[in-house]
Amino acid sequence: MKNAVSTRIRFARNLAGVKFLSSMTSKEKRELLLRIKDEAKKTGDFDFIDMSALSDIRAGELVEKHLISPEFGENREDCGVLLSKDGETSIMINEEDHLRIQVIMPGECLEETFRKAKELEKQLDEVLHFAYSEELGYLTHCPSNIGTGMRASVMIHLPAMTETGAIGRLPSVLSQNGLTLRGLYGEGTRAGGAIYQISNRVSLGLSEEEIIERLSAMVKKIEETENSLAKKLFENEQTVDRVSRALGILKYARSISSSEALKLLSDVRFGAENGVLDNDISVIDKLSYEVQPCSMEIAADGKNRDAVRADKIRNTL
Amino acid sequence: MKNAVSTRIRFARNLAGVKFLSSMTSKEKRELLLRIKDEAKKTGDFDFIDMSALSDIRAGELVEKHLISPEFGENREDCGVLLSKDGETSIMINEEDHLRIQVIMPGECLEETFRKAKELEKQLDEVLHFAYSEELGYLTHCPSNIGTGMRASVMIHLPAMTETGAIGRLPSVLSQNGLTLRGLYGEGTRAGGAIYQISNRVSLGLSEEEIIERLSAMVKKIEETENSLAKKLFENEQTVDRVSRALGILKYARSISSSEALKLLSDVRFGAENGVLDNDISVIDKLSYEVQPCSMEIAADGKNRDAVRADKIRNTL
Repeated sequence: MKNAVSTRIRFARNLAGVKFLSSMTSKEKRELLLRIKDEAKKTGDFDFIDMSALSDIRAGELVEKHLISPEFGENREDCGVLLSKDGETSIMINEEDHLRIQVIMPGECLEETFRKAKELEKQLDEVLHFAYSEELGYLTHCPSNIGTGMRASVMIHLPAMTETGAIGRLPSVLSQNGLTLRGLYGEGTRAGGAIYQISNRVSLGLSEEEIIERLSAMVKKIEETENSLAKKLFENEQTVDRVSRALGILKYARSISSSEALKLLSDVRFGAENGVLDNDISVIDKLSYEVQPCSMEIAADGKNRDAVRADKIRNTL
Repeated sequence: MKNAVSTRIRFARNLAGVKFLSSMTSKEKRELLLRIKDEAKKTGDFDFIDMSALSDIRAGELVEKHLISPEFGENREDCGVLLSKDGETSIMINEEDHLRIQVIMPGECLEETFRKAKELEKQLDEVLHFAYSEELGYLTHCPSNIGTGMRASVMIHLPAMTETGAIGRLPSVLSQNGLTLRGLYGEGTRAGGAIYQISNRVSLGLSEEEIIERLSAMVKKIEETENSLAKKLFENEQTVDRVSRALGILKYARSISSSEALKLLSDVRFGAENGVLDNDISVIDKLSYEVQPCSMEIAADGKNRDAVRADKIRNTL
């Protein structure tokens, strides 16, 4: 399961007896925000961030770390987020629904991530009482989320499928299984460094467990395809040369852009996945988050971002 | 004097009372070859190579090491070369003149190289008796060599002058001083890895010492220009980045062509010349000879040349 970068479970939830956000005034939204924040804090030790007060760069950093959605990072008026100390749990308040409860963990760990998210969701339900219909399940703003209100995603690195073009056949295969392929930051985004998101397309008509099972089985299948394609690519010395050079450049560059760094880190991960390089994959994944534009802008603290990025990579590898 | 790669002195000589090669039959040339070989061997411990019996690859290797001229490597019929054990002295027999006596030494050492070459030339004169005219000096096949019959050359690395285009003004400056700019392997050849040859244009009308002095003064001047341009280029972080990446690629490539290797070694030398990288320049210069096509073909011994080259570079750096 070395291709999986991370696993994410998120539940879309709305409070029973409370209007959807689209029908609320700004004042009502702020009142809801404070109410949810106060109640949610009873369930765990969270830091609260008032999104309206956040700078673009800081919001961008949360997006890069997958703690909030890109849309939530863009439209921050009357929004807030609760973050757990371990960086794995986030509760977006007033995103599209009243709450988006999310747990993200490294690697492929659908069962564990689901358990952790479900437990938090239950605790929140006890204090907030979510809108639920016996017939439809959890009620959400967008019909595609009605039912379980759950989206389970695996972020997965597929360099060989990308290079050979096999990735082009994946969407239709996934679709037949009620799943979908997205870019690294959700619908319509690019797959940066050959990392894709595989998740369930609908959340109605299947139980949470069935969704997890289907996704898990599909991820396993995709990894098998990826690995057999990778094996063939590495029979060519040029592939070995390319991933080794990528490591050399990362270890020696004095200035590097975000996109080049992600491309080269993807190559190094490709080498490590296939035993050609002996780099620690978790170190590469951590770097891949850290070198992104907003995170780097904050770390650079006024200094040249590309130079600080190169230093960071050199010192880490 | 860190920009100078090597210094070379060669004397063109012909035997008194013997026709020029252009008027000789093949039989006469072979007889001359044997006569010179036997007499020359009295002056030192040389290995003799019968050029007619040599493969293209082995001849190419001698050219790459600057032990013979490219023309001599091409037209090997009835030719031979005597090589000293230290690899610094070579005596081409039946090149354009009966003898081409050559000494090549690393770095800028015109005085020492001249002394060594002159001493050998004198010893050979004693046993072979060179054609000499009080009026014209030493008689040679090509008028441009008449007089001292000497060509003094300094092979010099000028990356900043190449990058800034300042090299374009050099030929006219040199010409005014009776000097000339050539490519790495003589007239009409390319300057591989920003290495050029600066040498005297004519050998008539000046004493050997005057030629050496002029060349030495000009090399010093050129180095000053190169160094001040280099200093400016290295104020730009992109230059630092480029030379550092070059080292990274050389240390990590698993397959590399001769031309890419020479380009990157030139960048690394550029960094070392300017204190940005701490590589030993003599190691880089040695590698720059060793990675060339013919030398590498011999070292590869049937294996993939680009892969063996990459291994060689990786293990050396």
